[in-house]
Amino acid sequence: MLGIDIGGTKVAVGSVTQDGTVQGEIMDFLSPVGSPEEFVEALLEQLREARSRIKDDILGVGVGCAGTIDWAERRVVESPNLPLKDELLGERIAKALRLPVVLDNDANTATLAEVRVGAAKGNSHVIMLTLGTGVGGGIVLDGRLYRGATGSAGELGHTIVKGNGDLCRCGRRGCLEQYASGSALERYARQIVDHGRLTSAAQGEDAADAGADPPEDYGRRLRELAAADGLNGKSVGELALEGDAAARDAVAEVAAWLGAGLANLANIFNPDMIVIGGGLSSLGDLLLEPARKLMEAHAIRPNGTVAQVAAAQLGNEAGVVGAALVAWEVLEDVTLPV
Amino acid sequence: MLGIDIGGTKVAVGSVTQDGTVQGEIMDFLSPVGSPEEFVEALLEQLREARSRIKDDILGVGVGCAGTIDWAERRVVESPNLPLKDELLGERIAKALRLPVVLDNDANTATLAEVRVGAAKGNSHVIMLTLGTGVGGGIVLDGRLYRGATGSAGELGHTIVKGNGDLCRCGRRGCLEQYASGSALERYARQIVDHGRLTSAAQGEDAADAGADPPEDYGRRLRELAAADGLNGKSVGELALEGDAAARDAVAEVAAWLGAGLANLANIFNPDMIVIGGGLSSLGDLLLEPARKLMEAHAIRPNGTVAQVAAAQLGNEAGVVGAALVAWEVLEDVTLPV
Repeated sequence: MLGIDIGGTKVAVGSVTQDGTVQGEIMDFLSPVGSPEEFVEALLEQLREARSRIKDDILGVGVGCAGTIDWAERRVVESPNLPLKDELLGERIAKALRLPVVLDNDANTATLAEVRVGAAKGNSHVIMLTLGTGVGGGIVLDGRLYRGATGSAGELGHTIVKGNGDLCRCGRRGCLEQYASGSALERYARQIVDHGRLTSAAQGEDAADAGADPPEDYGRRLRELAAADGLNGKSVGELALEGDAAARDAVAEVAAWLGAGLANLANIFNPDMIVIGGGLSSLGDLLLEPARKLMEAHAIRPNGTVAQVAAAQLGNEAGVVGAALVAWEVLEDVTLPV
Repeated sequence: MLGIDIGGTKVAVGSVTQDGTVQGEIMDFLSPVGSPEEFVEALLEQLREARSRIKDDILGVGVGCAGTIDWAERRVVESPNLPLKDELLGERIAKALRLPVVLDNDANTATLAEVRVGAAKGNSHVIMLTLGTGVGGGIVLDGRLYRGATGSAGELGHTIVKGNGDLCRCGRRGCLEQYASGSALERYARQIVDHGRLTSAAQGEDAADAGADPPEDYGRRLRELAAADGLNGKSVGELALEGDAAARDAVAEVAAWLGAGLANLANIFNPDMIVIGGGLSSLGDLLLEPARKLMEAHAIRPNGTVAQVAAAQLGNEAGVVGAALVAWEVLEDVTLPV
């Protein structure tokens, strides 16, 4: 199966077996630029070229793409990083390559890849949260991607965890995305820069109190970053990994909200495992350990068990492999909509 | 299949076909009282008597019970209304009746009943919220009950919708159960009694402002109920149905939080339908219509569709029918754990 991962920076294409092994090499192209039509035309040309370079028989194509996807129509409704809006991308790729095409969002493809060949291998019930600028989600139940009635299940970042909280780009207030994302990490760091302490602590007054009497140079490096216009989720995370106390407080705030989100997922799905992917997963146990502890303290577990929590394992190849695995899952199984 | 519904007031038993039809009459017994052991002994005696009165062949038994259930062990971990704690109730009933037994919580049995023969008939992906004193949940995906990795999925009332909010009996803060239950309705009414207006409005200051300049007799009937020690979710709901403005404000507050919960469920599961059961469902569209509107405004729906929201339809028989349907589903299908 051909796996295609369409990102804002590059388009990656590879041939992938049903067990998730890449055959030969993954081909990378720079993502096209220009108008929507120019983007699609250049993309299709890249894909035709990639297809011509692959000697294997190809049964079909899986395409993973960031953004809101209309699963049944194989349509990109909108995408944060690509010049696509209401584009029937699946159909156009199918016509260009003369192959059956499945189009899915990149959180779903990443989730299936982690379940089949990554951190959650061997588990049947797996939820994935991708913590980047935003928060995405994927749901695998009984070993298969769950998409719901019309294909839009898994918008786990857009669940309200703080009623009447901060405004989310989805238009609601208090979504998980506003509290446990890279943007949230940056916001918490800015609170420390501006006020000397966190002003929106998840766990009530305790965290704010703890910051009320900080050491003298507390937040100095965050202030330096901010002054140099370099304060963002990534740089705050790196400072935290280096041990900076203020950056760690900002990470702890993300972890507290993530813990609430994990407990919610545990109580809703009772999964075997929750996988944390996206940029924030590079924080590793600095983020996951406190979040896991909170989840374990708060999940309802009549039989004593509770979900494992693990960082995503797959790197660059995940997008291509996951897209192909989605196509394998759908195209091999007539019980799912194609 | 024998369906058994064990409640705090009565135990109901009936023979139910695979399509959910009750054969003959449902037999009711008063729920036993006494110590856990006395309770179980008397219950088993009732069940033996009920079994002896049924002429049909019985393949197995489904038991629905309020409380926390360890699904695999067929154990009642604890129950709010019954003197049971860590009781291997399924095993004891199986031995007493010499039949295979499935034990499940009453939210799951109610959900399956609504999907097979009630409000959600014909739908494949259905979430049910039971809004009573607490908030329970049931999940049907692809037409079958979803229980997760170890049987405890569906604790939808214990998902945090207001981080750092009111303390829940589960030990966490801000669970949906604290904001969209019969107990919450009573609490909102008490706020009006004590302060002349709601003090914890879901939608920020608007609702509180609206209550800042109420009509002269606003809340009078709620105050009368409170003075007579008769203020509870049920009585407030009845007042609201009669048109009392203050009681309606309390219901509107429940509806606002329910709307947030519905949008969360829509974004997580993308279900065909969400069914609202439990005592609060008797409020009908007074509760459901505003909640539905909020959900529709806030659910992410790439293809324009969003879950239907409907009140549960089944009355007294639902417990027995649902319990039997759970047993049919499990005992007829070797792919599920028995």
